[in-house]
Amino acid sequence: MSASTYKQLEQEFRRLHAFRGALSLLRWDSAVMMPRGSADVRGDQLAALETEHHALLTAPRITRLLDRAQANSQGLEDWQVANLREMRRQRDHAIATPASLVSRLTKACARAEANWLEARRQGKFELFAPHLEEVVHLIRDKAALLGQALNLAPYDALVDEFSPGITTADIDSVFKALGRRLPSLIRESIALQETRAKLPLTGKFTGAKQRALCVEVMKAVGFPFDRGRLDESEHPFTEGVPGDIRVTTRFDPNDVFSGLLGALHETGHAMYDLGLPQDWRDQPVGRDRGMCLEESQSLLIEMIICRSRPFVRYVKPLLEKHFGVSGPEWDIENLYSHLITVRRSLIRVDADELTYTAHVMLRYELEKQLLSGELAVKDLPAAWNAGMEQRLGIKPANDLEGCLQDIHWAVGSFGYFPSYALGAVIAAQLYESLRADVPELDDQLSRGEFSGMFEWLRANVYGVGAKVTVHELMKAATGKPLSATSFVRYAENKYLEGAANSVAA
Amino acid sequence: MSASTYKQLEQEFRRLHAFRGALSLLRWDSAVMMPRGSADVRGDQLAALETEHHALLTAPRITRLLDRAQANSQGLEDWQVANLREMRRQRDHAIATPASLVSRLTKACARAEANWLEARRQGKFELFAPHLEEVVHLIRDKAALLGQALNLAPYDALVDEFSPGITTADIDSVFKALGRRLPSLIRESIALQETRAKLPLTGKFTGAKQRALCVEVMKAVGFPFDRGRLDESEHPFTEGVPGDIRVTTRFDPNDVFSGLLGALHETGHAMYDLGLPQDWRDQPVGRDRGMCLEESQSLLIEMIICRSRPFVRYVKPLLEKHFGVSGPEWDIENLYSHLITVRRSLIRVDADELTYTAHVMLRYELEKQLLSGELAVKDLPAAWNAGMEQRLGIKPANDLEGCLQDIHWAVGSFGYFPSYALGAVIAAQLYESLRADVPELDDQLSRGEFSGMFEWLRANVYGVGAKVTVHELMKAATGKPLSATSFVRYAENKYLEGAANSVAA
Repeated sequence: MSASTYKQLEQEFRRLHAFRGALSLLRWDSAVMMPRGSADVRGDQLAALETEHHALLTAPRITRLLDRAQANSQGLEDWQVANLREMRRQRDHAIATPASLVSRLTKACARAEANWLEARRQGKFELFAPHLEEVVHLIRDKAALLGQALNLAPYDALVDEFSPGITTADIDSVFKALGRRLPSLIRESIALQETRAKLPLTGKFTGAKQRALCVEVMKAVGFPFDRGRLDESEHPFTEGVPGDIRVTTRFDPNDVFSGLLGALHETGHAMYDLGLPQDWRDQPVGRDRGMCLEESQSLLIEMIICRSRPFVRYVKPLLEKHFGVSGPEWDIENLYSHLITVRRSLIRVDADELTYTAHVMLRYELEKQLLSGELAVKDLPAAWNAGMEQRLGIKPANDLEGCLQDIHWAVGSFGYFPSYALGAVIAAQLYESLRADVPELDDQLSRGEFSGMFEWLRANVYGVGAKVTVHELMKAATGKPLSATSFVRYAENKYLEGAANSVAA
Repeated sequence: MSASTYKQLEQEFRRLHAFRGALSLLRWDSAVMMPRGSADVRGDQLAALETEHHALLTAPRITRLLDRAQANSQGLEDWQVANLREMRRQRDHAIATPASLVSRLTKACARAEANWLEARRQGKFELFAPHLEEVVHLIRDKAALLGQALNLAPYDALVDEFSPGITTADIDSVFKALGRRLPSLIRESIALQETRAKLPLTGKFTGAKQRALCVEVMKAVGFPFDRGRLDESEHPFTEGVPGDIRVTTRFDPNDVFSGLLGALHETGHAMYDLGLPQDWRDQPVGRDRGMCLEESQSLLIEMIICRSRPFVRYVKPLLEKHFGVSGPEWDIENLYSHLITVRRSLIRVDADELTYTAHVMLRYELEKQLLSGELAVKDLPAAWNAGMEQRLGIKPANDLEGCLQDIHWAVGSFGYFPSYALGAVIAAQLYESLRADVPELDDQLSRGEFSGMFEWLRANVYGVGAKVTVHELMKAATGKPLSATSFVRYAENKYLEGAANSVAA
């Protein structure tokens, strides 16, 4: 009886999975293919499918089946028990937010996004402010309801939507450790890099050539082009489901690495999704373990692997082949020095590995203050600018370089930002264990062989799906609890390499 | 009370419209963008959305609302009463076919389509036969159920799904008239054309250049590229909804007209859809009036307008501009003679305007015999070949050129074929009235001005939506009931032009 109840649930969630896949395709199309004037039509389609998905997930039938299956779970396998837990999690999140609030929030975010774009065009924060205010109010309501339902603090409940099992305590502990070392490390790295001359990488790198390079490297990495695509979009992203996964990048003709790093960041997401357990593919337990893990996989590739000497060794002849470049500026050391340049800058998405977390920590602090009411929306620009000055010693000249740069708050994604920094920390901790377990890793990467790395990731990360928590996953994969220790060690080794010598010289 | 009941129905059908739009986008993507290996994933998504669409449309709530609204319709406007009728029509069609039969049919068609492809690859009809047999059985059940529910003969019920209000009697009457004149007209046209030498149109016409030509002509026609796209696919088609309409074509580098004629055929569909009443856009009454009308609009452009001297006058300098061609073979009369060549050939989609209906009439006869049981699936190839010999005097060398050429039966589209021939007949009848009402039409077309034609079509066809029947629409637009008279007159004028002189010469 319980087995058949459970099987019915699997059937229901298979259908929900198909809905989510359709929604993902609609979003991909919006950003890559859709004619510019069709946003209203697409908006209606997304709303109709999202509403129906919500209705199906919160139907009384699902709750009844979940209650019955959980009361009789003794015949189930481990992963099925975990699947029930994840089903319940999805349902709990969905049911805590009443349809009326979801609908008001959807509309408020649509307005806020449109006005965010307009505010950016005109460079006027005040055009965005009242709409952000409305979103903040609604998110506050949502956080309160979610928190009550999930027995979490309101902000933690928001974080839990993106990164299940991660709490403010986890974030604070990591951020405290980073805050202790990063400011001085940034200073030391910049000072060190200033002692070393760099030859500029000039040239015109057409989109077509950058694309060909991306495709060649993605094939080497193992991206399956018969079940996936690479396209261009304004901001790189990954959509789709395992079986039809779609990544995008953008090509700056003045930046030889722009397309490749964007494409490989997204390929990191895609490889995670593709490596999820095949047998659970359309079930909640077969999904990724939240945005922290997702970001860890994109950053592991883009920040750690791509910005390493072995990878540069592999990619140097490919740059020569695709762009016909030659000369001392294309030497391995010069290329590498470009890839690891540390710079105090104003725009998060352009930031390097070391300063990136400062951008995230600022947003984390501000969004908590916005939600608690400690910070009024109208005071956001000033608070932002003061925060940048305090953390990185630079100040935006205007709000485009400041609090208008990210779309997240406009679309209601409060609680998302921390996952970027936690992802970087998780990536470094996994990388440390990966290196220990695969001693020949550097040699393999130098030859463009990625299978050793992905075997390890499949065994320790991808193949687990959502069966365990992030904390359990990290413990099992690295033998240690999640912490910033590995990241700090990794960053010191990488960015202070040769520092003593340099100073001695 | 009734007004609010009616408003609730509008809301429900607005949601169904959004679902259909999403489904259309998924199908477009499958044919244009989807990686080859992702068909299984897409199949699950389509099935989930179609099942849900069916469930929403056949929910008891809809029936209750329809009953209540129809019992209290006195306060409603004309178009709203027609909308209720069209809502009921959609619901009646959906509810007549039980979900279990829909599901069995979907699966049988998926198998039949795959085996049709394989049978084509291997040139073996017997690989397809058992699967077609299964589809025929299920369609027979569906036709019987639909016929009972709609009070129509089984085959008429199938036709009614594609072309509401069209019956076997309408089809037979048109086909009888065509059958009386076309065989001799084909003979005479071919004989006449044989007396006139034609210079070949040779060259390599790249996809990129053909595409640029298509875009320029489509812009002149009025296709809105900010709310629509042109792409390539194996077979040209149109998907999407007004607001985001997507047409495709294919480019044969050896055929200067291949891309353009495909694109403009589909643009005919798109212009119809785009011209539907804006205010009813997401309601059943705001949809096209079935496949007969749809095909009439694509054939009006492709067969009548594009294959006319005024259009050739307009397009000749564009051919010179885009392909850099020159010489006597690019003169207007030589181009025109290529566009109106009549040829007894085996493949329907490559057939000219005169022989095309013979292909359709054969399929109409055979599909009725398959459904009635008069013709066994195993005997289809022989019956097909005999029919071709009888109707066009030519015989397929194999089933690829014969009964394996069309996908329609594999995917369960019985009752669809007649709409192609009725579409041609409707197009000619509309064209006759259009010429009478817009005497300067030829001059306009010669200058690439299409607005006069589309104003007339919007007023007489597009703007009516599904408010009236095909028969009412034709009566109002042309003053005459639907018949083959105009088509025969048009064909005689066009294909026997100068015949007396030729014979006299």
